Amino acid sequence: MRIRKERIQKDLEAINAFNATPEKGVTRYTFSKEHQGALSYVVEELRRIGVNCSFALGGNLLGRLAGSEPSGPGVMMGSHLDSVAEGGRFDGTAGVAAALEAARVIQEGELSHRLPIDLVVFAEEEGGRFGWGLLGSSAWSGRITPDQLAQIKDREGVGYLEAMESAGVKIGDASTLNPESLKAMLELHIEQGSILESRNASIGVVEAIVGIKQLIVTIEGSADHAGTTPMNLRRDAMQGAVRIISAVETVARQEGSGGVATVGQVFCEPGQANVIPGLVRFSVDVRHSDGSRLEAMAAGVAYMAENVSKGRNLGCRIEVKAEAEPVEMTPGLCDLIEKVAKGKGMQPVRMASGAGHDTGIIAKISDAGMIFVPSQAGRSHCAEEFTKVEDIALGAEILLETVLELAK
Amino acid sequence: MRIRKERIQKDLEAINAFNATPEKGVTRYTFSKEHQGALSYVVEELRRIGVNCSFALGGNLLGRLAGSEPSGPGVMMGSHLDSVAEGGRFDGTAGVAAALEAARVIQEGELSHRLPIDLVVFAEEEGGRFGWGLLGSSAWSGRITPDQLAQIKDREGVGYLEAMESAGVKIGDASTLNPESLKAMLELHIEQGSILESRNASIGVVEAIVGIKQLIVTIEGSADHAGTTPMNLRRDAMQGAVRIISAVETVARQEGSGGVATVGQVFCEPGQANVIPGLVRFSVDVRHSDGSRLEAMAAGVAYMAENVSKGRNLGCRIEVKAEAEPVEMTPGLCDLIEKVAKGKGMQPVRMASGAGHDTGIIAKISDAGMIFVPSQAGRSHCAEEFTKVEDIALGAEILLETVLELAK
Repeated sequence: MRIRKERIQKDLEAINAFNATPEKGVTRYTFSKEHQGALSYVVEELRRIGVNCSFALGGNLLGRLAGSEPSGPGVMMGSHLDSVAEGGRFDGTAGVAAALEAARVIQEGELSHRLPIDLVVFAEEEGGRFGWGLLGSSAWSGRITPDQLAQIKDREGVGYLEAMESAGVKIGDASTLNPESLKAMLELHIEQGSILESRNASIGVVEAIVGIKQLIVTIEGSADHAGTTPMNLRRDAMQGAVRIISAVETVARQEGSGGVATVGQVFCEPGQANVIPGLVRFSVDVRHSDGSRLEAMAAGVAYMAENVSKGRNLGCRIEVKAEAEPVEMTPGLCDLIEKVAKGKGMQPVRMASGAGHDTGIIAKISDAGMIFVPSQAGRSHCAEEFTKVEDIALGAEILLETVLELAK
Repeated sequence: MRIRKERIQKDLEAINAFNATPEKGVTRYTFSKEHQGALSYVVEELRRIGVNCSFALGGNLLGRLAGSEPSGPGVMMGSHLDSVAEGGRFDGTAGVAAALEAARVIQEGELSHRLPIDLVVFAEEEGGRFGWGLLGSSAWSGRITPDQLAQIKDREGVGYLEAMESAGVKIGDASTLNPESLKAMLELHIEQGSILESRNASIGVVEAIVGIKQLIVTIEGSADHAGTTPMNLRRDAMQGAVRIISAVETVARQEGSGGVATVGQVFCEPGQANVIPGLVRFSVDVRHSDGSRLEAMAAGVAYMAENVSKGRNLGCRIEVKAEAEPVEMTPGLCDLIEKVAKGKGMQPVRMASGAGHDTGIIAKISDAGMIFVPSQAGRSHCAEEFTKVEDIALGAEILLETVLELAK
């Protein structure tokens, strides 16, 4: 009855063999053939230990280890397998591999548990394909409606449901996740930051997940000839946009350590070297663990956008693309994770997560907790992302024992 | 023996019916089916008046009106039919329509001319498809080699020669344009600026074409997680790039009325809202009618790019994508155009062109002159681009008389 790190290593390698950009990080978009390949691996590994899988609303994969009270509320563990473009090998994947190994130990050791234990792989956590993060968990938990889900399309105009069908994903139970059927959600995830490394710790206990506000800012000017339009007669959307993007950094730096803000996407029309841009559109991702400061930062960005646009006679439109309030993890579950970790001789670090997680969505309808393992140099969402398999195995031991305690 | 504006109007409408974005300006990329359609219209109109066409090196269309001395050097008139993305209905097209109508008047009136008169439609003037402006004239005049031409690809990776072949363009004479076979080049073009309008003039005589330097600036940072990477640990390529793009405007404004600079393209990787950009690439288009000031402006932009990058621990690479020195039109030809215009009771305005033109390329091997007609509100490279057909007809009259004078 022990977590075996070599099996986790093998799982990581097998899953990461499904990768659309093997020469440059990991790209595994939801419902792509790489994503389906990785899911199939998990399904097959679960089948070997006698666990059958099905797909829940939103395209989330679910494998159930029935307990002695199969009608009782389930204890869920898992993470996601989709990635950002050219992302890392551990983000999401480490949590799925840890849960898979925990399931193996339970089944092979015939470890008794009263409540069902569910292994879950959430779909479209990153928003890499459909531009909307935490989508699988949001759909399943009823945070967005099936009608809203049906409207979501990827960059090529392929709808979420259409892509799901093309990938061969057939939903078994199309109902939303019933809070009464769920006792708790537990997720192991890489930290994606450098707090654990700087504290020389192997395990983090997540107390809160930062709130996120994603804006889409559209600046409209006039698309004129780059050679014949004097500087003082221009309505250059690009020159307005870059001053607003500069201000996004200023707003975050002034906020201090609690807040961050990022412009990760920019797009301009008509996009020719010899034409003044008539339209520039960019994303703004603002995060803070304090909800009111999050709103204040987003308001600061909006103020700067409107101010710069007005001063340059440009149009300005700001849409809220996605938002998630800061979420607290269940205090009793944090205590339990900490107790289990300490029982194994570890000194876990209590911390906030700077990244959003599906567990933050599920936390709104159920008890929820998260276990963090260290990221080397804090690098994530890139090819250099790295976490030692030893740390993932330590986290998996804590995950296993916590899940068994909850399912007792 | 008169230019008929209603035929020019019909030509403009017929050519602009070939348009990939009829709902939003004109998009007619070189060797697209729209471009081929427009060329076919010109070929058919020339055939009706007994003029046969062929394609010259680089994919330029050529129709010859043989004079009484068919072996003499030709007088060439024409412009281009390719467009930028979502551009206007007159840029290039007005010059082709004017030359076509001039050819009709010559043929129908059996107006005598000793030297051959050639109607030319240059390929890829805008660089809209292959990212390299004045390409057809550059290839034909030997400014770039056939080997270089064979390396050029569009955004989808389709080669210039491959695209030309797919479009069914077969080169008749693959040799470069022999300076001795060319007496002069004349092009009518819309101003694309607002000088003529502000002076209430119908005709401009171009004395010089501004020099252009197009740079591609690549800024490299580190693609990290937007939520978990503190502001002070970021190497954000976007935040560096926007400060350099801001400086591009500053450099041009400080230069005063002689110079302009534009960032019309920007591209970032990985291009996700929740990932700090690891790479941002953008174009810089700098123009000045004085060659040394052009170099000074480009150097100013390069200095700012390197300075900002160094201060933010970012990589910086600057490539020269295209450059054209300022070009003077042939003084004697400017005088002739002015004389012809004054003979018709007009008061032409002498001016510099802020845009590059194929005639600037041909000017390096031959006498060359340009006739400008006004652009409403100076708008160009956009759906709102407009020039009155009456002004194009006036310009065509001057073109016709100047060409006949040169071919006498």
